[in-house]
Amino acid sequence: MLLRMSTLLLRTLREEPAEAEVPSHRLLLRAGYIRRAAPGGYTWLPLGKLVLDRVAAVVRAEMEAIGAQEVSFPALLPREPYETTNRWTDYGDDIFTLKDRRGADYLLAPTHEEMFTLLVQDMTSSYRDFPLLLFQIQTKYRDEARPRAGLLRGREFLMKDAYSFSLTDDALAATYAEVRRAYQRTFARLGLEHTIVSAVSGAMGGSASEEFLAASEVGEDTFVGCTSCSYAANTEAVITPAPVPVSRELEHLSVHDTPDTPTIASLVDLANARALDGRADWTAADTLKNVVVTVHRPGAEDELLVIGVPGDREVDMKRLDAALAPATATLFDDFAARPDLVKGYIGPQGIKVRYLADPRVAPGTAWLTGANEPGRHAINVVAGRDFTVDGTIEAAEVRAGDQCPACDGGSLTIRRGIEIAHIFQLGRRYTEAFQVDVLGVDGKPVRPTMGSYGIGVSRAVAAIAEQHHDERGLLWPDEVAPADVHIVAAGKDGQIEAALSLGAALREAGVRVLVDDRPNVSPGVKFTDAELIGIPRSVVVGRRLADGFAEFRDRRTGAREEVPITDIPRVITSALG
Amino acid sequence: MLLRMSTLLLRTLREEPAEAEVPSHRLLLRAGYIRRAAPGGYTWLPLGKLVLDRVAAVVRAEMEAIGAQEVSFPALLPREPYETTNRWTDYGDDIFTLKDRRGADYLLAPTHEEMFTLLVQDMTSSYRDFPLLLFQIQTKYRDEARPRAGLLRGREFLMKDAYSFSLTDDALAATYAEVRRAYQRTFARLGLEHTIVSAVSGAMGGSASEEFLAASEVGEDTFVGCTSCSYAANTEAVITPAPVPVSRELEHLSVHDTPDTPTIASLVDLANARALDGRADWTAADTLKNVVVTVHRPGAEDELLVIGVPGDREVDMKRLDAALAPATATLFDDFAARPDLVKGYIGPQGIKVRYLADPRVAPGTAWLTGANEPGRHAINVVAGRDFTVDGTIEAAEVRAGDQCPACDGGSLTIRRGIEIAHIFQLGRRYTEAFQVDVLGVDGKPVRPTMGSYGIGVSRAVAAIAEQHHDERGLLWPDEVAPADVHIVAAGKDGQIEAALSLGAALREAGVRVLVDDRPNVSPGVKFTDAELIGIPRSVVVGRRLADGFAEFRDRRTGAREEVPITDIPRVITSALG
Repeated sequence: MLLRMSTLLLRTLREEPAEAEVPSHRLLLRAGYIRRAAPGGYTWLPLGKLVLDRVAAVVRAEMEAIGAQEVSFPALLPREPYETTNRWTDYGDDIFTLKDRRGADYLLAPTHEEMFTLLVQDMTSSYRDFPLLLFQIQTKYRDEARPRAGLLRGREFLMKDAYSFSLTDDALAATYAEVRRAYQRTFARLGLEHTIVSAVSGAMGGSASEEFLAASEVGEDTFVGCTSCSYAANTEAVITPAPVPVSRELEHLSVHDTPDTPTIASLVDLANARALDGRADWTAADTLKNVVVTVHRPGAEDELLVIGVPGDREVDMKRLDAALAPATATLFDDFAARPDLVKGYIGPQGIKVRYLADPRVAPGTAWLTGANEPGRHAINVVAGRDFTVDGTIEAAEVRAGDQCPACDGGSLTIRRGIEIAHIFQLGRRYTEAFQVDVLGVDGKPVRPTMGSYGIGVSRAVAAIAEQHHDERGLLWPDEVAPADVHIVAAGKDGQIEAALSLGAALREAGVRVLVDDRPNVSPGVKFTDAELIGIPRSVVVGRRLADGFAEFRDRRTGAREEVPITDIPRVITSALG
Repeated sequence: MLLRMSTLLLRTLREEPAEAEVPSHRLLLRAGYIRRAAPGGYTWLPLGKLVLDRVAAVVRAEMEAIGAQEVSFPALLPREPYETTNRWTDYGDDIFTLKDRRGADYLLAPTHEEMFTLLVQDMTSSYRDFPLLLFQIQTKYRDEARPRAGLLRGREFLMKDAYSFSLTDDALAATYAEVRRAYQRTFARLGLEHTIVSAVSGAMGGSASEEFLAASEVGEDTFVGCTSCSYAANTEAVITPAPVPVSRELEHLSVHDTPDTPTIASLVDLANARALDGRADWTAADTLKNVVVTVHRPGAEDELLVIGVPGDREVDMKRLDAALAPATATLFDDFAARPDLVKGYIGPQGIKVRYLADPRVAPGTAWLTGANEPGRHAINVVAGRDFTVDGTIEAAEVRAGDQCPACDGGSLTIRRGIEIAHIFQLGRRYTEAFQVDVLGVDGKPVRPTMGSYGIGVSRAVAAIAEQHHDERGLLWPDEVAPADVHIVAAGKDGQIEAALSLGAALREAGVRVLVDDRPNVSPGVKFTDAELIGIPRSVVVGRRLADGFAEFRDRRTGAREEVPITDIPRVITSALG
């Protein structure tokens, strides 16, 4: 490959594009890798297409290395299979739906569990056909409420989705582990530093799932690690350790006037000032905060729900949504319509709305909470005695320093990450929905169990850009760089011809070359563009061409070296290993 | 590459699939290359994906060889650009449209002229940036009224679409010629025998266009060739040669009772029986048939139109649609609502509906036609004297033996073909719509002129299958076969192990291998499957393995040869050239 910048469709931007908030988006736009074509839809320009193809090639190679077989499904699919599994409804507004000219319902598929299940039903009949591991690298669609950050959250994107079919739970676990290792190899090759964390399965269903999160400050996901064990989880999936049971004698519930205490802080101040219950050591953690939300369940009426959490914590709406999926929740604020819910003074005792509480609100715990009357609170409100919960829910915020749920004495740290992959042990949800049975070894029917494994291919390009850039531009890992070497013709005294002839020689040696042969661009602009574009190494053919020298530059280390131009091919090929 | 049939997702079908009408569809289903996933939407199974990728690779390589640059656009696009060029309306029901969660209009793009034009507007500014030739290989959507014949006419399909931008008409013509030659090389490599014919531009717009039609009896297009010159055209685009002017004196129009002559045949019989005008040599060609159609123009009211053609020809509805595009027409039959149109007795004299006639109905020609009264016809109805036409239209059927419009004395032959490519000199329709101007050499703004060039990549797979099969199965050209060699393990006395080890050795030599290592399948079934799958050459490891021999088979010629198994790699690599 030899690309010439004199003819390449490339226009680097000096200014920061107004539309871009995060470094990867900004740099991919500025360096001419992508352009916005639609809300949440991007065009891959020639350099971007090369990077995307290289990322996809690594993903494909590692899938093929574990025996996965590549297929390709349509993106435009009929409603019926998704109706059978309820996902047509569960996904709600998150999927694009449309009607064809005859009025039949279609969707642009967000993932293909249904179709792979039907294919396997069509093409297999006996235990001899299993296990099966199939994948595709295909355009996916999601009608994101808030497409953002360029390729990080788009509405049309490239995914590698894979599906496994096994006859036993052990076989599924083994395939799951194999794909997990293949993903680790994939991301190692792509230069993506990542953490594998426990995750929530969401609308996909299934029992267990893990996410691969690429560490990044601009990531939408937060995840925890433990200071002393290997526990790691998406914040959405963090489980709150059960509280230590309290053995002390509990007083009777009593109600007190607490005027003008609609907030936890004002309530704690008043409780200490008045020495309620004879104490002056009240903290927010002693109070029970009750948050009213409206739950939106696709295909059903909205309903009210009250969430109880210790008053020193907020309700984390992402954790709440994860716990309620496929339903979602929004804060309720129409208190005028519900006089039974006294804003700022709600307590769980006698509440007429469905009530779910944080695991810390365990039976036997006592709380300072609202008395369901304006300006009044109650103390010694005991869970299981004065009120009962309709269930527990993991919706309270997770904080750095929280106790690790997996070990004794460890505490949690929190980081941000970009979800670059998600793997699921789905189980038999889909094979049951379609009643897939095959002949077992013993002659009896067996229902296969499934795994589902996704990598965001276009998102991975952005994640790599997030992890591999500096203030001057991008800095691609070798495995995904659009070219191996960037030759800059810095001068007009034969430098362009020399650069092109060096490029041709390198191409003959199998090196992928970009030559900046633009005749009307200054060396300074060319150097700036080269750093912005971020090819790992460059060769400057400049003034010393007359002496037979060129300069070899390493983008990452900044090292520069004068090298006889005839030696360049040897230097490059040895640098490429 | 080494694929093992014992694990490959492949199930060949013995029976003819009920859904398939044409050989390519039947064989691609039976041999396990594709499966239907939706109306007009197909899944590529592992072998099919390999063929599709190989076809795409040839298309890509030939585009890159002429300096075309690959990009990739979203398929889901906002309405506005397509509104600007009127295509949102012109395509009518032929495109899939949808709304996002906010109610904004989107379409699944059928082609991308608008987006490429906007991209070039964004990324260029001066004559130095031109010419530009860009392409993508991308999934396209059309809401076909009648998806049929598997991959030949689907609603979701893979296309290579390319767009050129030039500053002068000559430069456009040169690029057009270069792409045309690249397409000829592409189809030669793909083994597609084809004819390049003049075509109609349709909703795309533009001045000149040609189609590449792969000869096939199941093709939807018919095209003509000339027996004595190089003229070739899609039947839709055939121009009727102007008739030789008649110099004889013309009689006055006279009306005659012609009871019970609603058809041309009955009219001619009666005219001869009664010796109308003193003649008994009336033929259908002397009569003028007037066909009433309803014209459906996207975004407008339906309107009536009468088409006049010589009575020995039918109106060809495809030619009519091509002439009216983007409008379409259907036969009108509600004569009760229009008493002025006397069914079976319509004449153009005094007609109150828009009237377009075949070019043969030239000024000065005289006709036997309806008198606009039940049971009456008129003779000596002279065009230009007794009636005037609102225009001419190319809607009469084209017949083998018709006079060639391009030379003297040649006559037309008719064949069927599959449209595998269409190339257009679009001109400035799109750059005008978006007001694209760049700085010219002389400092003045220049408006670029465009070409657009499409290859149906998935359709090409089907076209290859149509041209390369026999009664036993498919027979792929080397360049696109899913593997180079198919090794059949015919026996259980070490044949499977020997076949696999031969396969491994061939893979090391860079040969792409499919091994039939299925342990529970008889040699007969394996041979049948091998012929169905259609890999160009196979090696049978059978009974003579004990003597160190295998059989080399050529699928195309049927030749078989016993070869020492140690010689097989040499035989294969020499066969592969």
